[in-house]
Amino acid sequence: MSAITFTRPHRIRFSECDPAGIVFYPQYFVMFNDLLEQWVDALIPGGFAGYIGEQRFGLPTVHLEADFNAVSRMGDDVVLQLTVTHIGSRSVKLALRCTSLEGELRMQVNQTLVTTSLTTHRAIDIPAALLAALQASGDVP
Amino acid sequence: MSAITFTRPHRIRFSECDPAGIVFYPQYFVMFNDLLEQWVDALIPGGFAGYIGEQRFGLPTVHLEADFNAVSRMGDDVVLQLTVTHIGSRSVKLALRCTSLEGELRMQVNQTLVTTSLTTHRAIDIPAALLAALQASGDVP
Amino acid sequence: MSAITFTRPHRIRFSECDPAGIVFYPQYFVMFNDLLEQWVDALIPGGFAGYIGEQRFGLPTVHLEADFNAVSRMGDDVVLQLTVTHIGSRSVKLALRCTSLEGELRMQVNQTLVTTSLTTHRAIDIPAALLAALQASGDVP
Amino acid sequence: MSAITFTRPHRIRFSECDPAGIVFYPQYFVMFNDLLEQWVDALIPGGFAGYIGEQRFGLPTVHLEADFNAVSRMGDDVVLQLTVTHIGSRSVKLALRCTSLEGELRMQVNQTLVTTSLTTHRAIDIPAALLAALQASGDVP
Repeated sequence: MSAITFTRPHRIRFSECDPAGIVFYPQYFVMFNDLLEQWVDALIPGGFAGYIGEQRFGLPTVHLEADFNAVSRMGDDVVLQLTVTHIGSRSVKLALRCTSLEGELRMQVNQTLVTTSLTTHRAIDIPAALLAALQASGDVP
Repeated sequence: MSAITFTRPHRIRFSECDPAGIVFYPQYFVMFNDLLEQWVDALIPGGFAGYIGEQRFGLPTVHLEADFNAVSRMGDDVVLQLTVTHIGSRSVKLALRCTSLEGELRMQVNQTLVTTSLTTHRAIDIPAALLAALQASGDVP
Repeated sequence: MSAITFTRPHRIRFSECDPAGIVFYPQYFVMFNDLLEQWVDALIPGGFAGYIGEQRFGLPTVHLEADFNAVSRMGDDVVLQLTVTHIGSRSVKLALRCTSLEGELRMQVNQTLVTTSLTTHRAIDIPAALLAALQASGDVP
Repeated sequence: MSAITFTRPHRIRFSECDPAGIVFYPQYFVMFNDLLEQWVDALIPGGFAGYIGEQRFGLPTVHLEADFNAVSRMGDDVVLQLTVTHIGSRSVKLALRCTSLEGELRMQVNQTLVTTSLTTHRAIDIPAALLAALQASGDVP
């Protein structure tokens, strides 16, 4: 079985670029947050909006490491990729990558997210529906 | 003949919403700027990135009027629509709308953009390739 | 008596500018929203965060008209100005301006905001503490 | 002698928060980029805008590690702190921290930036004026 990987194409937008004509780096984290949402939308009924807005669960980032390998310019077509690298009892680790269509690595992030209650902002066990979907969707360490 | 209209579906993202759980209104203008880019990408060779980055033309907004009719919430599926309402010698007028899938109007903008040189930031005649594409693509007043 | 006017200096940031090296126009609305917050912080106990987060009132924009008169570049020192032009029973009208230190008008917005309940997202009368502060602070039509 | 440290107070803005009512984490990187600009503005004549816009030097991030220790809420008063931890021949390492007024650590970043030419987007030696200002301003390893 293969690991859980989720990819989406993306064209770098004017609104994501800075006066140097390249992606303003915080925008990569916005792109990856949007990718995370699309992934959760595909994974569980009600999607990310249901998870956050109705069930009042959170999924904040507690740690991340990012390497910026090459610049992305306005108009570039890139691929955004999310891979689950670890499922803990109250956390998920993701490897996120932005590459050109030819496979050139633009930047990558290793990120640890925890599942929380939005009422208390404290860590809770991964909600059952999310855990079951994660376990059903691939071979994760 | 019909007017030039360009539409794209969009799901309202967490990153676009505020602590009230609804779209932070400046984000509508980001959505519409991204829509404008997609439209120009479809209209001329080289697209928006070529127009801005290589040819050093600009397309800044000089006037806009916006009405916010109903809230959009995180996770909502909406339709973003751009219609050209007027082509001047150095300007283009657009009507932009965000509606729900059922057609409920969320917000709308009437916007005037001018074509400029990015070297001088001054208005110039609509570049020939853009004007020809606009004229070829529909019945615009 | 003079009208209610609130001003703050601001230096245009790299993060607010686009590949043309000038303010990405949706960022003006973010600047003005931050200005609105600072104004409400000065006006009522608990400030904007208390109004939104604790009292669960909203202050969404329902209409705005904006003119972009001249570009602002990265590093420019500008003045952001907010003037109350009308107080209705459930709404407030503001005139917002961004000028250079020498008084050159960069852009201006006339904006109508309504007071709402964040529970229902429906209009409500201007909350008493906010109304009293508005009435006490100047000569508003 | 003490290390180079630069601090600025900041109030968490509505525009920086997400539907969970806390800072949307990519906004921390925007805050720190604004802090970096303010620091460079204080360090060299012409400031950050001159460095980027006139001299066409860049200062992109090539690596960062971030820990998110506690949430920051809309309206919170925080302190943003930048400390130079290393000066290389073509790079600078920064430690960035966001703390509450009482000193509670909200999040921290260790970040490596390189000096580049914006014409080639390639690394160059730290420009002389910036290097001299860094060396003059404190005891850096």
